[in-house]
Amino acid sequence: MKVWLIGAYGIVSTTAMVGAKALERGIVDKTGLVSELPPFKKISEYVPLKFEFGGHDIRPLPTAYDAIMEHWESNRHFDREILDAVGDELKKIKACKGTALNCGEGIRELGRVETLEDEGLTLREIVDRIEKDIKGFADDETVVINVASTEPLPKFSEKYHTTIEGFEEMLDNDVKEYATASMLYAYVALKLGLPYGNFTPSVGSSLPALKQLAEEKGVPHAGNDGKTGETLVKTTLAPMFAYRNLKILGWMSYNILGDYDGKVLSHRENKESKVISKDKVLEKIMGYSPYTITEIEYFPSLVDNKTAFDFIHFQGFLGTKMKFYFIWDGIDAIVAAPLILDIARFLLFAKKKGISGVVKEMAFFFKSPMETDVINTHEQFVMLKDWFEKLAEV
Amino acid sequence: MKVWLIGAYGIVSTTAMVGAKALERGIVDKTGLVSELPPFKKISEYVPLKFEFGGHDIRPLPTAYDAIMEHWESNRHFDREILDAVGDELKKIKACKGTALNCGEGIRELGRVETLEDEGLTLREIVDRIEKDIKGFADDETVVINVASTEPLPKFSEKYHTTIEGFEEMLDNDVKEYATASMLYAYVALKLGLPYGNFTPSVGSSLPALKQLAEEKGVPHAGNDGKTGETLVKTTLAPMFAYRNLKILGWMSYNILGDYDGKVLSHRENKESKVISKDKVLEKIMGYSPYTITEIEYFPSLVDNKTAFDFIHFQGFLGTKMKFYFIWDGIDAIVAAPLILDIARFLLFAKKKGISGVVKEMAFFFKSPMETDVINTHEQFVMLKDWFEKLAEV
Amino acid sequence: MKVWLIGAYGIVSTTAMVGAKALERGIVDKTGLVSELPPFKKISEYVPLKFEFGGHDIRPLPTAYDAIMEHWESNRHFDREILDAVGDELKKIKACKGTALNCGEGIRELGRVETLEDEGLTLREIVDRIEKDIKGFADDETVVINVASTEPLPKFSEKYHTTIEGFEEMLDNDVKEYATASMLYAYVALKLGLPYGNFTPSVGSSLPALKQLAEEKGVPHAGNDGKTGETLVKTTLAPMFAYRNLKILGWMSYNILGDYDGKVLSHRENKESKVISKDKVLEKIMGYSPYTITEIEYFPSLVDNKTAFDFIHFQGFLGTKMKFYFIWDGIDAIVAAPLILDIARFLLFAKKKGISGVVKEMAFFFKSPMETDVINTHEQFVMLKDWFEKLAEV
Amino acid sequence: MKVWLIGAYGIVSTTAMVGAKALERGIVDKTGLVSELPPFKKISEYVPLKFEFGGHDIRPLPTAYDAIMEHWESNRHFDREILDAVGDELKKIKACKGTALNCGEGIRELGRVETLEDEGLTLREIVDRIEKDIKGFADDETVVINVASTEPLPKFSEKYHTTIEGFEEMLDNDVKEYATASMLYAYVALKLGLPYGNFTPSVGSSLPALKQLAEEKGVPHAGNDGKTGETLVKTTLAPMFAYRNLKILGWMSYNILGDYDGKVLSHRENKESKVISKDKVLEKIMGYSPYTITEIEYFPSLVDNKTAFDFIHFQGFLGTKMKFYFIWDGIDAIVAAPLILDIARFLLFAKKKGISGVVKEMAFFFKSPMETDVINTHEQFVMLKDWFEKLAEV
Ligand SMILES: NC(=O)c1ccc[n+]([C@@H]2O[C@H](COP(=O)([O-])OP(=O)(O)OC[C@H]3O[C@@H](n4cnc5c(N)ncnc54)[C@H](O)[C@@H]3O)[C@@H](O)[C@H]2O)c1
Ligand SMILES: NC(=O)c1ccc[n+]([C@@H]2O[C@H](COP(=O)([O-])OP(=O)(O)OC[C@H]3O[C@@H](n4cnc5c(N)ncnc54)[C@H](O)[C@@H]3O)[C@@H](O)[C@H]2O)c1
Ligand SMILES: NC(=O)c1ccc[n+]([C@@H]2O[C@H](COP(=O)([O-])OP(=O)(O)OC[C@H]3O[C@@H](n4cnc5c(N)ncnc54)[C@H](O)[C@@H]3O)[C@@H](O)[C@H]2O)c1
Ligand SMILES: NC(=O)c1ccc[n+]([C@@H]2O[C@H](COP(=O)([O-])OP(=O)(O)OC[C@H]3O[C@@H](n4cnc5c(N)ncnc54)[C@H](O)[C@@H]3O)[C@@H](O)[C@H]2O)c1
Ligand code: NA
Ligand code: NA
Repeated sequence: MKVWLIGAYGIVSTTAMVGAKALERGIVDKTGLVSELPPFKKISEYVPLKFEFGGHDIRPLPTAYDAIMEHWESNRHFDREILDAVGDELKKIKACKGTALNCGEGIRELGRVETLEDEGLTLREIVDRIEKDIKGFADDETVVINVASTEPLPKFSEKYHTTIEGFEEMLDNDVKEYATASMLYAYVALKLGLPYGNFTPSVGSSLPALKQLAEEKGVPHAGNDGKTGETLVKTTLAPMFAYRNLKILGWMSYNILGDYDGKVLSHRENKESKVISKDKVLEKIMGYSPYTITEIEYFPSLVDNKTAFDFIHFQGFLGTKMKFYFIWDGIDAIVAAPLILDIARFLLFAKKKGISGVVKEMAFFFKSPMETDVINTHEQFVMLKDWFEKLAEV
Repeated sequence: MKVWLIGAYGIVSTTAMVGAKALERGIVDKTGLVSELPPFKKISEYVPLKFEFGGHDIRPLPTAYDAIMEHWESNRHFDREILDAVGDELKKIKACKGTALNCGEGIRELGRVETLEDEGLTLREIVDRIEKDIKGFADDETVVINVASTEPLPKFSEKYHTTIEGFEEMLDNDVKEYATASMLYAYVALKLGLPYGNFTPSVGSSLPALKQLAEEKGVPHAGNDGKTGETLVKTTLAPMFAYRNLKILGWMSYNILGDYDGKVLSHRENKESKVISKDKVLEKIMGYSPYTITEIEYFPSLVDNKTAFDFIHFQGFLGTKMKFYFIWDGIDAIVAAPLILDIARFLLFAKKKGISGVVKEMAFFFKSPMETDVINTHEQFVMLKDWFEKLAEV
Repeated sequence: MKVWLIGAYGIVSTTAMVGAKALERGIVDKTGLVSELPPFKKISEYVPLKFEFGGHDIRPLPTAYDAIMEHWESNRHFDREILDAVGDELKKIKACKGTALNCGEGIRELGRVETLEDEGLTLREIVDRIEKDIKGFADDETVVINVASTEPLPKFSEKYHTTIEGFEEMLDNDVKEYATASMLYAYVALKLGLPYGNFTPSVGSSLPALKQLAEEKGVPHAGNDGKTGETLVKTTLAPMFAYRNLKILGWMSYNILGDYDGKVLSHRENKESKVISKDKVLEKIMGYSPYTITEIEYFPSLVDNKTAFDFIHFQGFLGTKMKFYFIWDGIDAIVAAPLILDIARFLLFAKKKGISGVVKEMAFFFKSPMETDVINTHEQFVMLKDWFEKLAEV
Repeated sequence: MKVWLIGAYGIVSTTAMVGAKALERGIVDKTGLVSELPPFKKISEYVPLKFEFGGHDIRPLPTAYDAIMEHWESNRHFDREILDAVGDELKKIKACKGTALNCGEGIRELGRVETLEDEGLTLREIVDRIEKDIKGFADDETVVINVASTEPLPKFSEKYHTTIEGFEEMLDNDVKEYATASMLYAYVALKLGLPYGNFTPSVGSSLPALKQLAEEKGVPHAGNDGKTGETLVKTTLAPMFAYRNLKILGWMSYNILGDYDGKVLSHRENKESKVISKDKVLEKIMGYSPYTITEIEYFPSLVDNKTAFDFIHFQGFLGTKMKFYFIWDGIDAIVAAPLILDIARFLLFAKKKGISGVVKEMAFFFKSPMETDVINTHEQFVMLKDWFEKLAEV
């Protein structure tokens, strides 16, 4: 299959490319790939583990190879041998120039940036260019995934965001104030009938107008915000307290990371969507709102080695207080990259099975799954499995 | 309902008594009680939250009040006000003298001990005395629960342990070598038609002979080894690695505790059953055997404040190694005590619903659940809920 | 000796009172008291371990007993038996009404507050009242210690803050804008010839004008900000990295606490002085400024159980990065209270030995010691010991 | 200078070689080298930062390059570029065949081993061969350092171990039972007038007979057991509790590591000397013996990434218990390797300054420093500095 990556030069994107190519050559195993677990065995009949990549980015690098080399130099997040083996493949991947409309101050941290709006284009022209780029790459088995830097929360407009007509009007009248990059990319993908996955907390396809478009076009989509690291642990662990009727008095989540993602998120407005995405999960699992701290801070020397410190203060029988601490010392891109491949596969599988609209059964992959309150990782896994098995049988 | 506790003077037992009485008076809330969660609401129609206690112990204390006072003085594990409010109730509870047959060297740590075998009784006579004691207390709504100190693994005998006839022969011929205290208590409970729960890793009712007895008598039973602390976390968390196809390279579990339980377990032979019980869970969840370290060590100043240090080394995409650490800083008796009440209630509920033999659906409460490989805490909770709901409907 | 406590109803103050009285009765041992270590044995010849207390506060409680009862109910930070034994002594201690001039928004968290400025007094009148209160209590062996809630950084004035004449002018002209409570208390103490210790990061006696006053009056003083918890560990541990020529790439310090102190510090302006006080220590020890995160956040359920999470990322030979994590799970008032007694004793000892001005050799007790760059806990201890031994010999 | 390494193919040895050569080429900085700190600036006048290496080992590898390649492949403990740059230098270093007399079962873990005793040599012949090997390499500026696998505790003999005459008699009569490899190497070094450092807990030069020899020959020596990782932290941190009169109730130290060192130490007899070396430090710092747990366990996937989990339970004012946890996540060889260079330099410096016998002022580098009770890292650093400065002045 083919995958079009928004943010194609990011560490998650390029690590996914390296992984996909290394898998093809058989030099790495399938560790980390959910879609390769026994319950999903049949997926390879629909979507073999073979990928071609294209995408948009706003950093004007020659190819994905230059991007991965920069990420690798500062992270060394996998063995050099792997990179050497697949380097040539990445040299063939060149991102098209994208849009960074209303992507906030944080974007400045990325260094030199070139965008479509710099060329003075209107919204409609931007959208047309994106469409042209994607059309030049896509076939029937293509999925679009957003892995670009996190945008700020968009300014909401009843008029332009709730119906597809309103959205088109916004494009036609060039009302840039209410448009952000992620919604423009999502719009094009859905319009072209391409399944769309949103690995970021940016708004993407979660706008009512775009959900409507997806339904109308009969396209499956899923998001938001890839569930890796601390939130993955939190949504796995919190149910234990619920099952045992233990009361959470407070839950502190303190995340540090370096890297571009960390730099961009160090800007308040860009961080906002992330923190909201991380913070509301507990309430859904516990049925009440414990006191929480959820913070993400920049810590340059860690680069992509996201480290999370969690402290859970809980109360048991007879009112007695107890404590639980955990430290997650993970490599963000390593946890995230295989999920990009998984999401792409499951979305294409869904399309082939005639599914349209939000695939809420893919909640397992996201921090803020659309249109479902199933946040418990265990329940999400069961839901994914059941959904897959039922569809695969048909 | 009535609960007969083997090890009635232990910290888990006496804390359960305090809790039950404090609940009756409405001075504590229901935190920690699984059976009080919404899905189990109907249980109170069958088994109201009201308990009477009796039991066996081998420490010759005047009453359960003397026992809890000693535990409380060194642990202060709940507010003194609660103890003062229910103290009189505990003064009314006096344990009968029990047996400590083949309970190992660890028992010596308990201080002065008086047992039935000290009186020179034969196996049959011991069993008769236990039966007499329990009969004097039990009614139709009585459950027996083993919360005594952990025994060593018994010496296994094909002849005496696999059939009820063999077991009776062992008793009749006074073959003490193959009998341990926990099986004698379990034998009496089942023979009397009383549901039996085993909160310890001791053999209890898990002997084939006794399973047969339970079936014949139509009695439900469940065990083994209450799932609290680190194993609870492990069986909640390990599935996350499985769902995400992350490979566990090694899992270190290091537990420290003081208290009698810690002292008894500091003896190699007594510890053995505990470690086995804790150690085999990972294999069942992951489908392979990661390298593991599982240790329990004595740390006097912690008393009952069981602390567990876990380190999980895991491998993700592209072979990259990552790390996860957790610290469980819990009060063992506080986590365990409400489960005693829960187990008693679910067992009585099962009996009322005509269930007999091992209630494997109660796996949720145990480290080494009998006759099931469902070790994943989430699956266990779903299993318990489904079982309960189905039965409650009838 | 006598101790006048600014913030007499705080948890540190009242815990110090309980401890002093419990020591007198011999119901607790000397654990936690630095001045009772072998090298300081001779201090009891000058300042026996016997204390009388008075003080100012702004919360209108009947006596220190009411204050400690409130702190104890929410913290249970020592055995109830101790409180019962010394309760009567605390009922005899009643704080005088103090000033909260320019103490910031955070003060509102304290509940009902009554201050001298509420009575409409001028600066000079406030200072006179404070003087009258202290004079009514103090004798030749009295020390004043500031343990009141942390103030915001004061607005600096060249004119009023650098000379004692300027300071007096500020008082006379009632220029309230440049005065904060802590400097007014310190002014009175020094003017009366009473040694003054500042356990808080508030400005206290560190104003040039007041340092001049201390020199002129021949009074010893010391501060600022009691070194407890995380900073104590940091200044003990960081030298290890320095001695071994290991490079600190980043040091994260994340502190959570509940309680009044936590509430007051949750206000930005009040927190500012605290964070500065905590943050500059690393540079002084390492000789360069590593990347640091220093945060204090409110976490209500912990009450006074200050918990600190530190992560040190460091680089060794050949450029290799390594990691160190620590968790401090302390009870703030328990660590702080004995230091109040220690500081009082050492200050009175200094006075008796004719020392005046800043006693920089008492740096061991403070996060931001005045007039010294000795921040390394080890060096501070050696410095205190050498200073004491030399003076004690004379 | 020249350094003769016993255990030349070990990870510490070969990492030290790589580092020394990389320093010469200026491709790494001096991080990790104590002797390059400002207070020791003058050392380069006596011992420039330039090293030549030789040594003994019992693994029959072609050169040190083969050894480092194996270590590097499983550890990747520094950037590959460094290895590539200095590889040729390591190809020139070939270890002579050594002795593994009474080195215990653990040695088997090393794979194929060839020793002098395999050739059927007597003790005297072994010693002669070692002497011949060293003589062929050494000059006036050569130091011998033991970095071989840890031996079991030797069987002690009054007759053969306490005087140099007895020791010679043991050699002459070939009493192999009482000789271990480390003492034979140490004997030769001292006999040849070469300073000797013992980076392991093996007996080495700490035998009374060999101390006598060192005095007689006027040679400086130092040991035992390089202080890295957890013990370094412990001896830095424990003083804090002492200075503050906080009582340590218990200190748990749990170490896990993989690698050859971990494998060898997984054998009880080999581990014994290590645990003793680590365990007695607390008593010396605190003045009493707190309850301690000190364990080292094998954890293969960590390879040389030694991880230590420490828990300190302590008591403060009013008897209140508090907790401190730390995790050391270090790379053993990276912490150790520069110390090899430091020890070599300081020993040669000592020799040039006419020092003979145990250099107890080098305690800073060792877990079990000979002939001193100065265990506090800070005091050790001050002692080293003072000693150096005084000698350097002359
Ligand atoms: N890594 C994880 O575990 C994880 C988990 C959940 C969500 N995410 C999200 O995934 C996204 C990517 O993370 P990353 O670590 O790869 O970050 P990154 O900074 O390495 O990559 C982001 C890439 O997006 C590009 N980009 C930014 N704005 C763009 C735009 N408007 N159009 C096209 N390209 C644009 C950047 O140039 C960069 O190449 C972030 O939003 C992050 O929050 C990551
Ligand atoms: N506390 C937990 O979280 C937890 C979890 C799982 C299992 N368990 C198990 O529960 C049991 C009790 O734990 P505890 O913490 O209450 O221990 P405890 O030592 O406080 O209590 C054990 C009691 O059993 C009594 N006893 C010992 N042998 C006996 C015998 N043969 N017959 C009758 N009484 C006997 C002792 O005198 C003591 O009063 C232990 O086996 C423990 O391993 C406890
Ligand atoms: N507890 C520690 O370990 C520690 C360490 C270093 C510094 N400190 C500092 O010590 C101070 C006291 O801490 P605490 O935990 O006891 O806090 P607390 O809130 O319990 O006590 C502060 C007391 O000061 C009173 N107060 C506030 N403003 C006042 C004023 N202007 N005049 C007189 N009284 C006033 C309050 O009413 C309260 O009774 C804080 O500034 C804190 O930052 C504490
Ligand atoms: N790495 C650290 O931080 C550290 C700290 C303190 C002490 N030490 C000690 O240093 C020693 C070396 O550690 P390492 O990690 O390099 O181990 P390693 O296993 O990598 O190296 C040991 C080397 O010694 C060789 N050897 C074994 N017995 C020998 C003998 N009798 N004669 C000659 N060579 C022999 C082995 O073949 C191997 O090459 C160990 O004793 C270890 O306990 C290491
Ligand atoms: Na780590
Ligand atoms: Na804790």
